[in-house]
Amino acid sequence: MSQTLARVAETIEARKPENGGDAATSYVARLMSKGDDAILKKIGEEATELVMAAKDVRAGADRSKVLYECADLWFHSMILLARFDLSPQQVLDELARREGLSGIEEKASRKE
Amino acid sequence: MSQTLARVAETIEARKPENGGDAATSYVARLMSKGDDAILKKIGEEATELVMAAKDVRAGADRSKVLYECADLWFHSMILLARFDLSPQQVLDELARREGLSGIEEKASRKE
Amino acid sequence: MSQTLARVAETIEARKPENGGDAATSYVARLMSKGDDAILKKIGEEATELVMAAKDVRAGADRSKVLYECADLWFHSMILLARFDLSPQQVLDELARREGLSGIEEKASRKE
Amino acid sequence: MSQTLARVAETIEARKPENGGDAATSYVARLMSKGDDAILKKIGEEATELVMAAKDVRAGADRSKVLYECADLWFHSMILLARFDLSPQQVLDELARREGLSGIEEKASRKE
Repeated sequence: MSQTLARVAETIEARKPENGGDAATSYVARLMSKGDDAILKKIGEEATELVMAAKDVRAGADRSKVLYECADLWFHSMILLARFDLSPQQVLDELARREGLSGIEEKASRKE
Repeated sequence: MSQTLARVAETIEARKPENGGDAATSYVARLMSKGDDAILKKIGEEATELVMAAKDVRAGADRSKVLYECADLWFHSMILLARFDLSPQQVLDELARREGLSGIEEKASRKE
Repeated sequence: MSQTLARVAETIEARKPENGGDAATSYVARLMSKGDDAILKKIGEEATELVMAAKDVRAGADRSKVLYECADLWFHSMILLARFDLSPQQVLDELARREGLSGIEEKASRKE
Repeated sequence: MSQTLARVAETIEARKPENGGDAATSYVARLMSKGDDAILKKIGEEATELVMAAKDVRAGADRSKVLYECADLWFHSMILLARFDLSPQQVLDELARREGLSGIEEKASRKE
């Protein structure tokens, strides 16, 4: 796995309240201590911000805005994964499986 | 970077209409040929499906559902990145930068 | 209640599969026959489209775009309400209750 | 128009910063003073919460949860409308137009 994803996943794991993460000093610990719904709301919000960023770039903003918002979305996705004791490696495995089995193009046969 | 992310990014790049991707046979080419808005709608839809999956798992569904929907969301994020000539490596670099500079915890100081 | 909301709610009610709505000819019947998840995905998608419309208007599109997307979002909200045997009148009652009890400004005291 | 929608729209109008709304005491004034993006993020967040509420109800929560979240979504839609100098009456007119012209079923012929 990407070293970065592994490190971020480790940091998130260490910030879990049950692993001693401190909600007073850590954003991740604070978000996790609020429970599933707080994390899910952030997924909705960060996806919305990514959409807004893409529109902003088309209206003249720097392309890096899409990058920052995508990083935010992936980061919060990783918090959700950790919440369900899943890892980004498993997401990569799933992406690899799709590519391997029938090519990423398997989606071509799926209902949109 | 993760080999998987690199491979998926390559496949997406090859499916761009300007690179010869065929909308008749490729889901990625078809989505890209529809333009920004079609991709952005998918981001909103896939984020919603990830939220629904997390709720379904809490109601008894298999945990892998969160994995599949997260893979879908990341996959469509990568289509958006490709659309803006950005790469997943740049997202990882941004995540690493946040971790490196001030720790992933920099968000602790950000407005939620 | 607004006559329009009442009429739209009646139409939706009549299109419920259990009320004889025909998925072959009616969009509402078709969506409802697919179940909760199909409706919820539309909520996510239509909210995303409303956000996109607002950005498009700021970039020069006609203001009516926000109107159309808001109508789509409210329409699909009403399909969701019907699915849960709730009515737009009850949503209006809830809005009135908030305004009446403590003013719409009660939200001022809520966590954002 | 529904008296409730009219009253809520009036309240929102009065809370606009340019109409003297005070961000210190009014949620609406505070949200509006933050600009478009803050409102759009709320649309994304409230739509996500409506989706979550529907899932919660299926898992046993009281049906009123869908009602409350739908009210929140409509309320924030109305803040967005006000931001673009549009009114809920215009949304109702659009819904009536669709019903009148070709029936609400016009959507049957639309690409989903």
